[in-house]
Amino acid sequence: MSARILIVDDLFPNVKLLETKLSLEYFDVLAAMNGPDAISICEKGLCDLVLLDVMMPGMDGFEVCRRLKRNPTTAHLPVVMVTALDQPSDRLRGLDAGADDFLTKPIDDTALFARVRNLVRLKAVTDELRDRALASREFGIGDPLALAAAGDGQNASILLVEDRKNSAERLSAALNQHHRVTVVADPHDAMVLATEGDFELTLVSLDLQGFDGLRLCSQVLSLDRTRTMPVMMIAEENDKARVIRGLEFGVHDYLMRPVDRNELVARVRTQVRRSRFSDTLRGAVQASMEMAVTDGLTGLHNRRYLDSHLAVLFDDAALRHRAVSMLMLDIDRFKSINDTYGHEAGDEVLRAFADRIRLHTRVVDIVARYGGEEVVIILPDAEPEAAHVIAERIRERIEAVPFLIDQETREIHVTVSIGVACRHVDDKGPADMLKRADLALYRAKSSGRNRVEAEAA
Amino acid sequence: MSARILIVDDLFPNVKLLETKLSLEYFDVLAAMNGPDAISICEKGLCDLVLLDVMMPGMDGFEVCRRLKRNPTTAHLPVVMVTALDQPSDRLRGLDAGADDFLTKPIDDTALFARVRNLVRLKAVTDELRDRALASREFGIGDPLALAAAGDGQNASILLVEDRKNSAERLSAALNQHHRVTVVADPHDAMVLATEGDFELTLVSLDLQGFDGLRLCSQVLSLDRTRTMPVMMIAEENDKARVIRGLEFGVHDYLMRPVDRNELVARVRTQVRRSRFSDTLRGAVQASMEMAVTDGLTGLHNRRYLDSHLAVLFDDAALRHRAVSMLMLDIDRFKSINDTYGHEAGDEVLRAFADRIRLHTRVVDIVARYGGEEVVIILPDAEPEAAHVIAERIRERIEAVPFLIDQETREIHVTVSIGVACRHVDDKGPADMLKRADLALYRAKSSGRNRVEAEAA
Ligand SMILES: [Mg+2]
Ligand SMILES: [Mg+2]
Repeated sequence: MSARILIVDDLFPNVKLLETKLSLEYFDVLAAMNGPDAISICEKGLCDLVLLDVMMPGMDGFEVCRRLKRNPTTAHLPVVMVTALDQPSDRLRGLDAGADDFLTKPIDDTALFARVRNLVRLKAVTDELRDRALASREFGIGDPLALAAAGDGQNASILLVEDRKNSAERLSAALNQHHRVTVVADPHDAMVLATEGDFELTLVSLDLQGFDGLRLCSQVLSLDRTRTMPVMMIAEENDKARVIRGLEFGVHDYLMRPVDRNELVARVRTQVRRSRFSDTLRGAVQASMEMAVTDGLTGLHNRRYLDSHLAVLFDDAALRHRAVSMLMLDIDRFKSINDTYGHEAGDEVLRAFADRIRLHTRVVDIVARYGGEEVVIILPDAEPEAAHVIAERIRERIEAVPFLIDQETREIHVTVSIGVACRHVDDKGPADMLKRADLALYRAKSSGRNRVEAEAA
Repeated sequence: MSARILIVDDLFPNVKLLETKLSLEYFDVLAAMNGPDAISICEKGLCDLVLLDVMMPGMDGFEVCRRLKRNPTTAHLPVVMVTALDQPSDRLRGLDAGADDFLTKPIDDTALFARVRNLVRLKAVTDELRDRALASREFGIGDPLALAAAGDGQNASILLVEDRKNSAERLSAALNQHHRVTVVADPHDAMVLATEGDFELTLVSLDLQGFDGLRLCSQVLSLDRTRTMPVMMIAEENDKARVIRGLEFGVHDYLMRPVDRNELVARVRTQVRRSRFSDTLRGAVQASMEMAVTDGLTGLHNRRYLDSHLAVLFDDAALRHRAVSMLMLDIDRFKSINDTYGHEAGDEVLRAFADRIRLHTRVVDIVARYGGEEVVIILPDAEPEAAHVIAERIRERIEAVPFLIDQETREIHVTVSIGVACRHVDDKGPADMLKRADLALYRAKSSGRNRVEAEAA
């Protein structure tokens, strides 16, 4: 994908060299010659990936990387450290600072471009999600970015696909200090485990006996159930071509043998964090959509949900010539509860009322708060008699056990009146049924409350 | 990206040949030997892209493509027709059926793979969005997929970057029958127009004088403001290499010169449809998140929004040592409106009440429905005196003009009581201010209603 690459280096010739190379590959290039400038460009959302020099006067690259990864606004930006430092300890410091990769000069252009393209593509996929999550923050539904950036990338359930016993033992030993590792030798078993298990990351040896590990990577990345799971490759030093192939089709990271255990731990942590970051964003968007159809006080569905689903259930029942019933419930003398014990107590009663109703309804039923103290229950496939039995059971359960208020220090007696109605063949729509339930409820109220009344025959 | 490719062909050797090629590129391959089987696999969500033969017994490829593109469940799947048919009319029939591309045998493998990768990557970006939109459908918030699939891809505003006068005229003439075309010759002007204008698609000649058109494509695809806009290239027949380069970094489609005007129209329509599809999904997710913080009846913010934003505004005011005020409004004797004129009338009053309040508040104010007939207004930076003036003005505007009910056939007189409170330096949180506003409202009620009362000094 096309993308804006930020080059950070204190030496102008270094900037120039990378700029020329990347421009030829049709990337949009920006440059910063020190850490603070780089951070400022990232915070303004002006780039998609950072190529970061380590040794710079003032703030060094490690510190720049740490700050970017700690800040919810910039934590999602891939950072590749590009440096002449070539000690394993430097590499590890970079990865520990949260860098997505650490490339040592002289840079192999093929490797650099493969990595940049890989990271940019993976980012493009989550950008859309991030935009939605940002909107949910604007609407005042928590701050998913801050939450997402705070993860530590520990305690993941990891699937290791490796058929060399020694290597499997060494790798598991290193990872088991921070995670839970399951080792599998056979690639077909691995695929079954990956789809059926609950793993957060898959680590695949490319040197399986008689099987191309890269194919397994590709399968995990393309199946619906596993495609958002990070996949890492382990390859022999002379197998660079396959590694680059893997990066091209979306494998998240790789390690060369002999595997440095600290590097392994650091890279796995980065991938787990990244993946949980996306999960958190996904969850936030999902939650804010759920809120749209949930009543904040009781956790029941709200009227918006009822209106939309009632029509669907009703039409479906008509089409299949099946029954559908509806209960309309109204707590008796609820206003006097509020007046006598206060609004807080009224809310406590409503919440407990909702909980008790939940106990007596099925998963397929729709239970929605319809208004102040009114609840509507839709019972798919329920004939009038069955609906009446359920209504009576709920009425009885409300009456039988007193409700606790004032933080469970006090008991009050609550009753409910219920109107029951069912779909008629000549109903024009759900509104007809709703009206009959409302009338039945009215009769229940006017004939003394704490009663169930069916619609008039 | 890794992906599941469905090969559809009635001849087994054709299936086998493509399967071998694609497997070597690490794609996951599925096959179907007739149209109905292909459609069924697509409907089950088992593939990411379809390579479709045209001539098959029974349902031909054109019909398969039309059905896939018409069905909301499968409309997002890229379809590439791969066939021995080589007449422009065949090609056009395929594109008119909604195919994303039409490749003629013998297939140039490089072109095929470039196209498949390009379409798979673009799909990966919108998949996440589609998943969210699907969830919004489950929650009962409309059916964005059906809406999105129904678009006709007409009437788009198109930016054409072309410095050859003849060509620009020919291309505009063809497109202007269905769209509105703006021609620009200079690539720098084009970039300004693309970011500042409101275009839905950019069409770029790769043969601009002294400028690489591909760079312009890359910029449009990487800038925040334009990155979701489809970009198409126009290239000379001998410029295949640059076309493939463009496909690699995410250009959406291309046309070779001499441009066939019917093909141009068909391809532009496909891109406009695809892009509007994503926009609709994005809008649906956004709307369902907005619903979560909106009161369904009045369109005001709901209590969930108030709770979350009040805390932020309050803390912010404390930090900056600024004032923040709050009005708590309650319609007088609202219960008797409901009892006398019915719930419908009560709802009409609430809606009109909300509308009138909106007229007298600023964009920075937060207006939220707090409970049944209660509304809370937060006034950032408003000192007590200013808050009082605003409250008095609202009270007066409610009293001055009668409310229309029974579908505007009848007038009733409505008044409101308002309690005013402001942040105190020793407040522990917004709840303190809220409590004072509530008490002030209580005094307004008990001293006769239709009054504004400030918190006790
Ligand atoms: Mg340096
Ligand atoms: Mg055929």
